[in-house]
Amino acid sequence: MSEITYHGIDIGLLEGGEDLVELLLEAFEESETPTLQDDDVLVVSSKVVSLAEERIVELDRVPVSPGAERIADVTGIDAREVELTLRESTILGVIPVAEIVPDRLESYAVSPEAARDALETLPALLVTNWNGRLCTNAGIDLSNSPEGTATLLPTDPNASARRLREEIRERAGADVAIVIADSEVSHRGGSVDVAIGCAGIDPVDSNFGATDLFGSPKVGGVDLLADELAAGAAVLSGQAAERRPVVLVRGVDYDRNGGIDDDVDLVRAGFWPTLKRTAQVKLAEHLPIPRR
Amino acid sequence: MSEITYHGIDIGLLEGGEDLVELLLEAFEESETPTLQDDDVLVVSSKVVSLAEERIVELDRVPVSPGAERIADVTGIDAREVELTLRESTILGVIPVAEIVPDRLESYAVSPEAARDALETLPALLVTNWNGRLCTNAGIDLSNSPEGTATLLPTDPNASARRLREEIRERAGADVAIVIADSEVSHRGGSVDVAIGCAGIDPVDSNFGATDLFGSPKVGGVDLLADELAAGAAVLSGQAAERRPVVLVRGVDYDRNGGIDDDVDLVRAGFWPTLKRTAQVKLAEHLPIPRR
Repeated sequence: MSEITYHGIDIGLLEGGEDLVELLLEAFEESETPTLQDDDVLVVSSKVVSLAEERIVELDRVPVSPGAERIADVTGIDAREVELTLRESTILGVIPVAEIVPDRLESYAVSPEAARDALETLPALLVTNWNGRLCTNAGIDLSNSPEGTATLLPTDPNASARRLREEIRERAGADVAIVIADSEVSHRGGSVDVAIGCAGIDPVDSNFGATDLFGSPKVGGVDLLADELAAGAAVLSGQAAERRPVVLVRGVDYDRNGGIDDDVDLVRAGFWPTLKRTAQVKLAEHLPIPRR
Repeated sequence: MSEITYHGIDIGLLEGGEDLVELLLEAFEESETPTLQDDDVLVVSSKVVSLAEERIVELDRVPVSPGAERIADVTGIDAREVELTLRESTILGVIPVAEIVPDRLESYAVSPEAARDALETLPALLVTNWNGRLCTNAGIDLSNSPEGTATLLPTDPNASARRLREEIRERAGADVAIVIADSEVSHRGGSVDVAIGCAGIDPVDSNFGATDLFGSPKVGGVDLLADELAAGAAVLSGQAAERRPVVLVRGVDYDRNGGIDDDVDLVRAGFWPTLKRTAQVKLAEHLPIPRR
């Protein structure tokens, strides 16, 4: 393995309820797109999985609880978004973005006005435990959603990945791996895509303690392969993720069934306890969150 | 841009003091390796940059201070490694790896014995501020180093990247971007490569507040492009990083001079304050670190 290729696949814009595999197979029939082969990896944006699975909520139909109202008052986040976040996840804390990094965000913005508008829409991020994964706002996405709607993450991304993999095998005869990717706030201050579910690929290289070139056991070797693939695919999809939400990766050397049986839970767990504590520290400072 | 290709480049094993650009240009002359072109990105492992810059220390020649002895006693880390870490960085805290996740590491290991051997070598990781970057053990690497030596990170990875870029332009006539990559412990519990320096590429997509498909300003769009490239390259180099420490990435759409002038400091800063506090919490629990 000395070459890996990433191809962006345009499957058009989804509105909700589409047959994702059909859209994919249609795209692969086009002349510019390579044919699917065994051992290919498909990195699929969680957004299109959510849309295909109709995980779309009309904000006006969300009844807001007093707890959500209270968090919305303190943080400035839309109360309906807070309510959805409370339903989908456990809120651990808050990152008061508009308060702590407005200057930095202006330097990253398309314009200072755009930065201010965006921070007015969402002045803070809630740190949440969603399905054992640390993420912001339970992964709920109001951008690139039709006016007045929000998109929730797939209920069980591993199961979604398994379904996609099986359907592709049945309908196209190709034995591929699926990685479902979502953007995540990096501790480095921007975002990088990570894997939130996968099928047919061991998401972790399990080589802890392997001997190095000089025969010593190495403290390392636990490479998060699925996360690396998600990040690599984001280079291609980038800002145009909504137009190329699927990236075909060819040439990756991976295990179909690694030591952890297609289970990404271990990937997620990591240094959880540490980060959980951080979030709570921020929480104590900024937000009296009611228990529900 | 709908296709990106990563090629692993074998430049042989370095021992220290080599002319990295010469090794690279020799590798590119081989028939299997594509010719360097303008706009290519070279992702270079920090390890070979360190070796070429002779950032190698003989452990037996490191005089150990009382402060380092004390930290070594509490953590079980080699006192000379602690001493080097103190010299290179500010220690913020400790992750007592052997104590908190031995079972998980055994499941990731090549064998339970290898896991135990590795944890005996390095039972804890020091959380450090190295040049404004949060990393473990100041990035000091005892693995894949000759017996009895340690490799330190390049003193100024941005400057190293600029030198490589300029030399390649002079000697090969190609205007390429350089990303220097290093493995970093992910909060997800394994490691993913990130960018620690770069030249000729804006490491951050600055699209905060850009309007989404429906015209709303988006809270996001700060993609850490250089980190994504480093992670994508790690898929290819993976466990064989020492054999393919340079990855040529072709097809990336990037800005040579973005809004932040080849300066990765902003990338590093991020949510520093939050993570710094975490580290200190762990510190207070586990380790009375002496001030120096």
